[in-house]
Amino acid sequence: MDYKQAGVDYAKIDPLKILAQQAAASTAGHLAQHGLTEVVASRGESAYVVDCGEFYLASITECLGTKALVADAMRAISGRTHYEQIAQDTLAMAINDLITVGATPVSVHAYWATGGSDWFDDAERARDLVAGWKAACDTCGVAWGGGETPALAGVVAPDRIDLAASCVGLVRPKSRLTLGEKLAVGDAIVLLVSSGIHANGVSLARKLAEQVDGGYAARLADGTRYGEALLAPTVLYSPVTEALAAAGVVPHYAVNVTGHGWRKLMRHPASFTYRFHRLPPVPQVLRFIQRHAQIDDREAYGNLNMGAGFALFVAPAEADRVVQVARACGIDAWVAGRVEAGPRRVVIEPLQLTFGGGDLRVRA
Amino acid sequence: MDYKQAGVDYAKIDPLKILAQQAAASTAGHLAQHGLTEVVASRGESAYVVDCGEFYLASITECLGTKALVADAMRAISGRTHYEQIAQDTLAMAINDLITVGATPVSVHAYWATGGSDWFDDAERARDLVAGWKAACDTCGVAWGGGETPALAGVVAPDRIDLAASCVGLVRPKSRLTLGEKLAVGDAIVLLVSSGIHANGVSLARKLAEQVDGGYAARLADGTRYGEALLAPTVLYSPVTEALAAAGVVPHYAVNVTGHGWRKLMRHPASFTYRFHRLPPVPQVLRFIQRHAQIDDREAYGNLNMGAGFALFVAPAEADRVVQVARACGIDAWVAGRVEAGPRRVVIEPLQLTFGGGDLRVRA
Repeated sequence: MDYKQAGVDYAKIDPLKILAQQAAASTAGHLAQHGLTEVVASRGESAYVVDCGEFYLASITECLGTKALVADAMRAISGRTHYEQIAQDTLAMAINDLITVGATPVSVHAYWATGGSDWFDDAERARDLVAGWKAACDTCGVAWGGGETPALAGVVAPDRIDLAASCVGLVRPKSRLTLGEKLAVGDAIVLLVSSGIHANGVSLARKLAEQVDGGYAARLADGTRYGEALLAPTVLYSPVTEALAAAGVVPHYAVNVTGHGWRKLMRHPASFTYRFHRLPPVPQVLRFIQRHAQIDDREAYGNLNMGAGFALFVAPAEADRVVQVARACGIDAWVAGRVEAGPRRVVIEPLQLTFGGGDLRVRA
Repeated sequence: MDYKQAGVDYAKIDPLKILAQQAAASTAGHLAQHGLTEVVASRGESAYVVDCGEFYLASITECLGTKALVADAMRAISGRTHYEQIAQDTLAMAINDLITVGATPVSVHAYWATGGSDWFDDAERARDLVAGWKAACDTCGVAWGGGETPALAGVVAPDRIDLAASCVGLVRPKSRLTLGEKLAVGDAIVLLVSSGIHANGVSLARKLAEQVDGGYAARLADGTRYGEALLAPTVLYSPVTEALAAAGVVPHYAVNVTGHGWRKLMRHPASFTYRFHRLPPVPQVLRFIQRHAQIDDREAYGNLNMGAGFALFVAPAEADRVVQVARACGIDAWVAGRVEAGPRRVVIEPLQLTFGGGDLRVRA
């Protein structure tokens, strides 16, 4: 879910590439009309950025994906709706992308499209969704500005919900803008802990539930049920980026690790080699998936976060401080790698694994 | 689709009202942390507004609804996808709400959730959607910042698409803020022409297609097919509000006429009587619906736009100028009513019809 250029997923609609590029091209004129300027480098990044003079405006719309289907299935097993977790996941999809450009999240809108308004007649589930949404907003210090709850019979499946979030943020002071100009050879890469699968790789995880004994009720090594472990909500990373700003630390680049797993760590447009000497512990649920789906490390690290939900690329002298600030926020972190001169690739030394530049395609 | 307070549709989730209010209440503290202030009066209005010092930031997320189902059905009859029209409808849902607070739309994000990524394999349909989206952005002078095209098998129905748009805007200068403080007895009400059903009342229109001879292929009096007339895209009104700003005219209030038809004209929180002496011509497709669905004027004007897609409440001395500016934008307009002291109600004199304050419930 990271193909941003003019809203078009090039992997799916290659014939439309030219048109989408025209759309992007016409933008500059539109903004100039209002005395604003597009930050061109934000095209292809995780959030769209406009220069408003005193500060930058960043915006994004992100979708949960199909993780709510796991909650729906788990309810029969756990007796809980799990929608407070699902709500946090949805917010996290938007917030964790928005903050990569250096923005402070200001306000969010909820998009909750159901197959029928009777979805909300289940008061427990509706209450959990609202409570989880509010709690996630509170964690991120973001205003819940409103939203949309359309009933879309015939479009959304009966008793299902399509969840998305849009988020607006400000980059202020403008020196906080993190679009990658600052990234340099020698920078340290700090990885922030993930809570599990987050909301990427969920289709694989759901398919697996049909194949393993016990399905979602299967037990991991620590006794947790597979489905419950899957539903550990995505970590919200904005407390870390805000704490860093308060501490005067401006990352040189940031990556929200999502559907492309560790391949996404070479998202930056320039050619650098990202060499990792250390791996975060792999969440049990991801080990379980890897073992039962019989996928090798290349496929696992190339598609799942494998314990690293977010990456901060920082000046080497600040790396330890970044780790301290993250831990003070209750989010574990490790100085795990460094940026080197060399071809665009991710080298994971402990696994003797390399992803080349051609393995990632998130830009036009 | 106008229940905005903290994203919760109170008509559906009354038990959650208190919680949602708490969410709204906690917002002030969050924004203060960032040196920002919520414009409290925007809660309950069509867009959420935050005071950023030099200007106001407005944001919104809006859904198309089920109108794409009409396009899907009409394709077999017309041989066209109609998705360039559907794209404009989707943008209009967001833009026309955002501009009611006085904002200039700056950037939009597309939300195109499908039942499977093969939706985009239909190149003609995909191209029409992109082209229509781009054209609508161009009409409104808004930057297409990006978007999301998730494939949601199991959530969105096969070969269907859930379309939404989020939009960010700036109110600049701040004197353009239109939250209703300026509305006064004696103000004139200028109505702007609609193109047809827009995207509200579509469920009724779809149901009717199952009942009338010929369905979507039925002919209106002017020979147009019912389905084609339904698909006339929603008028984009931001060229008018921008032209008014350029002409130095600041409306005292604005209403995007949507799902509550003319009842929405008393959306303003204060008690005023809105008296109309003139009606815009009723689009043929709405006359067709009214006749075949056998609904009276109360139901028709209480739920459909009946020819008035947008309302501007302005100082009486500026009313004629507003009409001229709108017409110069190619959007017909009429000085159709006035604001009077009196109980909260909409009085439509030519029809001897009155909607009382209790007939509208779009606020908490």
